[in-house]
Amino acid sequence: MSKYWNETVNNIEPYIPGEQPKDKKYIKLNTNENPYPPSKKAIEAMENVINDDLKLYPDPTCSELISEIAVKYGVDEDEVFVGNGSDEVLAFSFMTFFSREKRILFPDISYTFYKVYSELFKLNYELVKLDDDFNIPLDEFKKSNGGIIIPNPNAPTGKYIDTENLRNLIEVNKESVVIIDEAYVDFGGESMVKFIKDYQNLLVVQTLSKSRSLAGMRVGFALGHRDLIEGLNRIKNSMNSYTIDRVALAGAKAAINDNEYFNEITKKIINTRENSTNQLRELGFKVLESKANFIFVTHEKANGKFLYESLKDNGILVRYFNKDRIDNYLRITIGTDNEMDVLIEKIKTILENL
Amino acid sequence: MSKYWNETVNNIEPYIPGEQPKDKKYIKLNTNENPYPPSKKAIEAMENVINDDLKLYPDPTCSELISEIAVKYGVDEDEVFVGNGSDEVLAFSFMTFFSREKRILFPDISYTFYKVYSELFKLNYELVKLDDDFNIPLDEFKKSNGGIIIPNPNAPTGKYIDTENLRNLIEVNKESVVIIDEAYVDFGGESMVKFIKDYQNLLVVQTLSKSRSLAGMRVGFALGHRDLIEGLNRIKNSMNSYTIDRVALAGAKAAINDNEYFNEITKKIINTRENSTNQLRELGFKVLESKANFIFVTHEKANGKFLYESLKDNGILVRYFNKDRIDNYLRITIGTDNEMDVLIEKIKTILENL
Repeated sequence: MSKYWNETVNNIEPYIPGEQPKDKKYIKLNTNENPYPPSKKAIEAMENVINDDLKLYPDPTCSELISEIAVKYGVDEDEVFVGNGSDEVLAFSFMTFFSREKRILFPDISYTFYKVYSELFKLNYELVKLDDDFNIPLDEFKKSNGGIIIPNPNAPTGKYIDTENLRNLIEVNKESVVIIDEAYVDFGGESMVKFIKDYQNLLVVQTLSKSRSLAGMRVGFALGHRDLIEGLNRIKNSMNSYTIDRVALAGAKAAINDNEYFNEITKKIINTRENSTNQLRELGFKVLESKANFIFVTHEKANGKFLYESLKDNGILVRYFNKDRIDNYLRITIGTDNEMDVLIEKIKTILENL
Repeated sequence: MSKYWNETVNNIEPYIPGEQPKDKKYIKLNTNENPYPPSKKAIEAMENVINDDLKLYPDPTCSELISEIAVKYGVDEDEVFVGNGSDEVLAFSFMTFFSREKRILFPDISYTFYKVYSELFKLNYELVKLDDDFNIPLDEFKKSNGGIIIPNPNAPTGKYIDTENLRNLIEVNKESVVIIDEAYVDFGGESMVKFIKDYQNLLVVQTLSKSRSLAGMRVGFALGHRDLIEGLNRIKNSMNSYTIDRVALAGAKAAINDNEYFNEITKKIINTRENSTNQLRELGFKVLESKANFIFVTHEKANGKFLYESLKDNGILVRYFNKDRIDNYLRITIGTDNEMDVLIEKIKTILENL
């Protein structure tokens, strides 16, 4: 507390990212990073721009990266917005499309940042309760609102909603913007991108931090009707003219272009996820059906917090949320097959010693 | 305009960065970049982190960079905040220390972004009028306020206020935060950093885009009392956990560490500035006394807009502001000696053909 902080700073509860302890080398299954390295083409592209031109500002319009994304997703360039990670894209979206007057809606169990943004920008919001199986009840979103944000697949559950059901929601909700946060869509889900030309109120948000293995470079993007994109640019250009540096722009462009590698690693992760799911179920875990690069699991005999701590003691980091309804669950990022084998072995030992 | 934008987006006038035309190669003296390349050590440090670890998030606490800055400026680590360019640091400062209830104060002619931030965050503000010689009248800031921001040296004038006068302002203004924006202080000014332990309400903001030649990598920082820094971190962690990517963190750390190169290039730019100032004065220009890496000039016989356009036709970009009181001035970034020689020659020809 300080007398120099304004009321918002005093009251807000900032987001807490997954821990990054430096005391020893962990198998890191706690922040949904990709276990595979970035595309070699992206590495090469970044190496190529480490030169004297770094004295110059980056392109504020990010035109080359935007053009690459437009080609990849079959949209027009003015239907693409890029930002410093999808977190920044989401924050700017809250600043652009939502206002105090009307309540925005999002699931009670979902990405914690939605609530933080709502508090930060002093928005009214309603947490729509997931059902007992952690499904998002779309019908509960079909009421007067000032905006909707739904992660698909949801985090931390990994549960996925098919595009038909989402289209239906967007169609009956024409008066406000519906944001579909697709941070994890590339691991088996189907993107809503193909519908942005049908709905002027649909904004799709994606990131290069997961399926493109570039969490270290901070690039995310939004796809939607050109008016929505123009609004986002108005806010961005009122905060920071250059949010993505020269190296990140180059790496992101090359990563988007490398479809072959993208297909290879996302397939691998999906396979590993299905194998790990089966193995954990055999050990008595309840594992939610996931279309993401993580799984959400609980065991009736082993307490979630205890499992989290035991795994940490054994050199494996997973994510534990000390929150109502999910405080007996763990969110486990899908690593390489080897990493998941170690995880399974450690869990077996922990369960045997209960 | 879109029915999906909120009122703020509809009303705001975003900042417009200096033009970056791609039609031909220009001598670029319009965005206050450094004409010299980044430190070789920074280049090397960035090359060294282009590797598979880019799949992992950056350190959200930026601890190594912060530690380097703390050593360089002789402050504690909890007195340092880093962000995605000083623009982001400034935006977060507005979000942290200012509120609607009390008017904030800044000069009428100064960095345009202050006004944009005020509009974006719906703050009340008063533009304090510079005197006829473009001096900032500090006495006019000595009244009830909700915060003060002063660029020193000022942009686009380049004029500098000595630390004694600023200390006096901060001392009589204990109830609100005084931000000194020192983007250009390394070109002959004296930083207020040495006083942050004396004043709990002083925040000093700097950038690596100018004196460190890293505009392309987007890193800025703030120095101040630990309570101010904690407030900034609360806002940052409510917007985006990781605003600086791995490559930028590494490059910035190495650049801060390379004092020798920093001293060499800032000295060169100061010398070039003094030479160019003398030459332009000989050509009949009024050149304001500058402590920045740019000069603010006007010529009684040649109209500012005409000069800007003529120089652009001749392959040289300078900055022209179509604004009350300064619409007959040009802001010229200090380039290399060679670049400035070309500028002077072109100007001579333009003046001769009047």
